[in-house]
Amino acid sequence: MTSANGNSEIRKGAVNNRTVILSPARSRRPSDFKSKSDSNRSSGADPQCPFCAGNEHQCAPEIFRSPEYSTSDWKIRVIENLYPALSRDVEVKSDDVDYRHADVISGEVRLGGFGFLDVVIESPVHSVHLPDLAPAEVAGVLLAYKKRIEQLCGIGSISYVQVFKNHGASAGASMSHSHSQILALPVIPSTVSTRFNSMKEYHNQSGKCVLCNINTNNLLIDESNHFISISPFASTFPFETWIVPRYHSSHFHELDEDKAIDLGGLLKLTLQKLSIQLNDPPYNYMIHTSPLQVTSSQLPYTHWYIQIVPQLSTIGGFEMGTGCYINPVFPEDAAKILREVKIPA
Amino acid sequence: MTSANGNSEIRKGAVNNRTVILSPARSRRPSDFKSKSDSNRSSGADPQCPFCAGNEHQCAPEIFRSPEYSTSDWKIRVIENLYPALSRDVEVKSDDVDYRHADVISGEVRLGGFGFLDVVIESPVHSVHLPDLAPAEVAGVLLAYKKRIEQLCGIGSISYVQVFKNHGASAGASMSHSHSQILALPVIPSTVSTRFNSMKEYHNQSGKCVLCNINTNNLLIDESNHFISISPFASTFPFETWIVPRYHSSHFHELDEDKAIDLGGLLKLTLQKLSIQLNDPPYNYMIHTSPLQVTSSQLPYTHWYIQIVPQLSTIGGFEMGTGCYINPVFPEDAAKILREVKIPA
Repeated sequence: MTSANGNSEIRKGAVNNRTVILSPARSRRPSDFKSKSDSNRSSGADPQCPFCAGNEHQCAPEIFRSPEYSTSDWKIRVIENLYPALSRDVEVKSDDVDYRHADVISGEVRLGGFGFLDVVIESPVHSVHLPDLAPAEVAGVLLAYKKRIEQLCGIGSISYVQVFKNHGASAGASMSHSHSQILALPVIPSTVSTRFNSMKEYHNQSGKCVLCNINTNNLLIDESNHFISISPFASTFPFETWIVPRYHSSHFHELDEDKAIDLGGLLKLTLQKLSIQLNDPPYNYMIHTSPLQVTSSQLPYTHWYIQIVPQLSTIGGFEMGTGCYINPVFPEDAAKILREVKIPA
Repeated sequence: MTSANGNSEIRKGAVNNRTVILSPARSRRPSDFKSKSDSNRSSGADPQCPFCAGNEHQCAPEIFRSPEYSTSDWKIRVIENLYPALSRDVEVKSDDVDYRHADVISGEVRLGGFGFLDVVIESPVHSVHLPDLAPAEVAGVLLAYKKRIEQLCGIGSISYVQVFKNHGASAGASMSHSHSQILALPVIPSTVSTRFNSMKEYHNQSGKCVLCNINTNNLLIDESNHFISISPFASTFPFETWIVPRYHSSHFHELDEDKAIDLGGLLKLTLQKLSIQLNDPPYNYMIHTSPLQVTSSQLPYTHWYIQIVPQLSTIGGFEMGTGCYINPVFPEDAAKILREVKIPA
């Protein structure tokens, strides 16, 4: 185990070019990490919750539901956000969304707040959370993401689609009913271009895709037919976990039904393990896909994955200032612990 | 006021290349933003606090104090961190700290955890916080940073020094006694290289230094002889405030005593205003300086500044995934509000 000698390490990963300081916790063993935050889990129905079946009229307009022609027996609803940060209605001229047209003197860019922010209600029942669903039902949620992304692909001025889930108030969730969000942007955000460049550089140097060749040495947690779950080599946060397709694929929305069920099972297992080991922590997951428009020369080195981050630590001025994180749990330790978590029957 | 029409905007700043979505708050006016978090402010002495005068023996070794030959009447102490994330004792060969020597196949880098993490105790008295000090006393703290950075400059393998302050538990402070921290790294972290490249690009295109020409249009809060405080054009967080030297300077540690007193006054005023307006929020400040080794061709476009971030919002999956932040307060609104805050006599 790398941390056995208690020494710190500075690591940089090959995927996202991020530096991390792995520094063993002062007085806690890795297995002692537990969430103290309220993860917002509630039981039973909530008559006030607009995401619950029966309260559909309290929500912003529906985009689609699954099954497609269901009525009160829907399983998943994709709706507009009642308070979107971006507006579907702002007209954006194609010149405006191109940062190369930035004012050279001021160096600043100002665009209309165009974009889409949608909500995926993952279950009609208030007390049901994502890992409570069967693998095929989790697959239904993943396929709802896919369907909505494909719709957004048809809008020329959208450059990137970020799918994410906030679970628990301290992870940014304003509603306790299980849901995720899809934000479509007219620009490629900085983290995405950094990752893109990092993947490209790896490919230039090795001729290979970095995620097809991801380091699993002492870092593998579980594997399914088409996916692996790992603790990344340069984990930014304690127990950060990635789910990576074993097949090469640039875009999440290339997922087919068969692979969605396989992924649904592994995502469920991973969330269950994190919940058991870490005391049902607040968490975020993000689907890191490629910009919608990639050229054929970019396809060989772009590869999507899911990043899951349990919220166990506070971010301070050092992390904000440098973009470098201090992580008290070595990923080799986290992977070993998560490999061994047993799911009660 | 830019937000008068309630429309969102996407902005990108010229200094740090960060994208932000400015999206007016749903139900709150900018002046209604108040902190609900416990900022950890305590009153009176704490017999248990190792940072209090009289408890010096409970601390890790002292590096220096101010005044230099003071005994129990010290005003500022710079000490080692009792639980450092990095070790002063790890030997780092110069080749190791150069990321260009990364393993080409794995793309990963692993270094010994070498570095310095020091603590600046800003007052001997437990209940005294930084903005409670007189401008010349705040200057004393700034000059202690300067002195310690100059010492660290002498260590060849140190590339970057991050000075930061965490105030309040939710901003990452583990001790309530007023203190700041100095972390010296053998690598240049990603946020710093991104800023460096952004400043360089602006200079290449305009022939000017971006911070000498910073946009103050409706964004200026206060000014002193040598400094201005502003809400940055692409504010990432509500009421984020920058203090920028009006003179061109690449490195914070070029600060002289005269300018330190001037800066001490403006930093005090800014922290007082944020505390009054936002209900004594937890906050972080970061001194963004240049890498220790810069060439003479880089000096014209690198310019240090201080970023102050009150902690008023939660970071979720969207921000983690994209590096793009959603800020509900337009900086023009924040600047107007902060300009008008009156400090009680």
